[in-house]
Amino acid sequence: MHSYDTISALVNSAIQQIKWQKEPAGLYDPIYYTMVQGGKRIRPVLTLMACNLFNDNIEPAIKPAIGIEVFHNFTLLHDDIMDKAAIRRGKPTVHVKWGENTAILSGDVMQIMAYELLLEAPTSYLKKVLHLFTKTASEICEGQQYDMEFEQREDVLPEEYLEMIRLKTAVLLGCSLKTGAIIGGATKEDANRLYDFGINIGIAFQLKDDLLDVYGNTEKFGKQVGGDILCNKKTYLFIHAKKTAQGEIQKKLNYWLNISNPEPSKKIHEVTEIYNQLGVKKIC
Amino acid sequence: MHSYDTISALVNSAIQQIKWQKEPAGLYDPIYYTMVQGGKRIRPVLTLMACNLFNDNIEPAIKPAIGIEVFHNFTLLHDDIMDKAAIRRGKPTVHVKWGENTAILSGDVMQIMAYELLLEAPTSYLKKVLHLFTKTASEICEGQQYDMEFEQREDVLPEEYLEMIRLKTAVLLGCSLKTGAIIGGATKEDANRLYDFGINIGIAFQLKDDLLDVYGNTEKFGKQVGGDILCNKKTYLFIHAKKTAQGEIQKKLNYWLNISNPEPSKKIHEVTEIYNQLGVKKIC
Repeated sequence: MHSYDTISALVNSAIQQIKWQKEPAGLYDPIYYTMVQGGKRIRPVLTLMACNLFNDNIEPAIKPAIGIEVFHNFTLLHDDIMDKAAIRRGKPTVHVKWGENTAILSGDVMQIMAYELLLEAPTSYLKKVLHLFTKTASEICEGQQYDMEFEQREDVLPEEYLEMIRLKTAVLLGCSLKTGAIIGGATKEDANRLYDFGINIGIAFQLKDDLLDVYGNTEKFGKQVGGDILCNKKTYLFIHAKKTAQGEIQKKLNYWLNISNPEPSKKIHEVTEIYNQLGVKKIC
Repeated sequence: MHSYDTISALVNSAIQQIKWQKEPAGLYDPIYYTMVQGGKRIRPVLTLMACNLFNDNIEPAIKPAIGIEVFHNFTLLHDDIMDKAAIRRGKPTVHVKWGENTAILSGDVMQIMAYELLLEAPTSYLKKVLHLFTKTASEICEGQQYDMEFEQREDVLPEEYLEMIRLKTAVLLGCSLKTGAIIGGATKEDANRLYDFGINIGIAFQLKDDLLDVYGNTEKFGKQVGGDILCNKKTYLFIHAKKTAQGEIQKKLNYWLNISNPEPSKKIHEVTEIYNQLGVKKIC
């Protein structure tokens, strides 16, 4: 078994070796910018670790693992347009740096590149790997759609929220693990068990991300703290606060949710105070 | 050999049979809207005709053919955002009807659906079909990027323009034919010959499209006439006019190209007049 550090280094080196910069530069430079900037690269590491559970040779899983990472970065690129996010991993987002049209089109190419890399899976597993990936990719878009719709709704239920984050975040972690397992030669049962494990860590991961958007620190977190509060994002914290707030606190919460053009830092401060009073940090 | 009409009817019926409308409706309704609205469906028809050249059984090529059509419609959806086009096939474009975010995300899902359908290609041809499709898909995005870059440049050469339309339009026609040929069991040589044929009809098709954008009629053409003129699009007509205009005509042309916020119908009328004087219609 390879260590986490060995596999992580392998992933980084595989990403460095890919020729991201091609012509036209206006299309490929944003992809290079996105891909070499880092991020945790949890997904390809999970793919290779899962493969390694069943096989000493993880080489055949490397390209598909990178394909999953490219797909993940593609979703961030398009989500950042839709969410109007200005910072990602401590740097300007692609649509801020190059404009929306570039962000749309470079994202489209990244989705194609993801498939290109997944096509490098061993032929005997190719159909299985691509079917899983394609199903997962659709689910992620469905999750993003629910996420956007929830921003316009006042009555999102905790179970709807959990289903949304399952689609938007967890299925790709499940897919990462299962892809590695398939290529490693796992039985169907083992591959499915790893998929379920991925779903569970994915949901936990998103709840933690919601928490850090309020209680994290910008430098470590890599994006602006309070972004979710500013756009009334229906996070688990928000949904729980809406459900439990009463009397004066409820009035104050509704005031900040409905105010148009609030002073950003003030809104973030006040809503965080309400969250503190309701103890939602602990519950989340 | 099946007739064009038989194959065209087969394509339409296959498209009708697919369940486009799924949950969340906000994501899939725009896809249904796009896919059932028609269009010429030239690409899937070409795939099935090419398959039929080598095989009486065209059934295995149907799903991949529809996949290519879905991909084509995805590119229209995203291109319409980037080009700020308001009308497509005589109806409001998706980003006008549902907003940009929906158009981005529904387009993303369509790209995935395209792969889902292409995955139905016979296993023995799967890798070949997907490699061709993936290469083609990247090239189409490169073509769109060049197209956008050319709008900001004053010195586009005719050969650059022809390469751009090869990428943006022609390669998908080549891919449509070659995909059918591969699934039909053609030799490599025959498949490549059909690919080249597709490239040539694709370039001719785009030149004709440029022509109709100026000289077509809105109802038949299905989009607004003069759109290319309004955004100073570097069509073959434009490039030729820039190259040949002299004296007063050149002055007049530059005036209309550089004016900010022109009255749309006036600009279209005046530039068309210049095109007429220069005889670019005939040359194109």
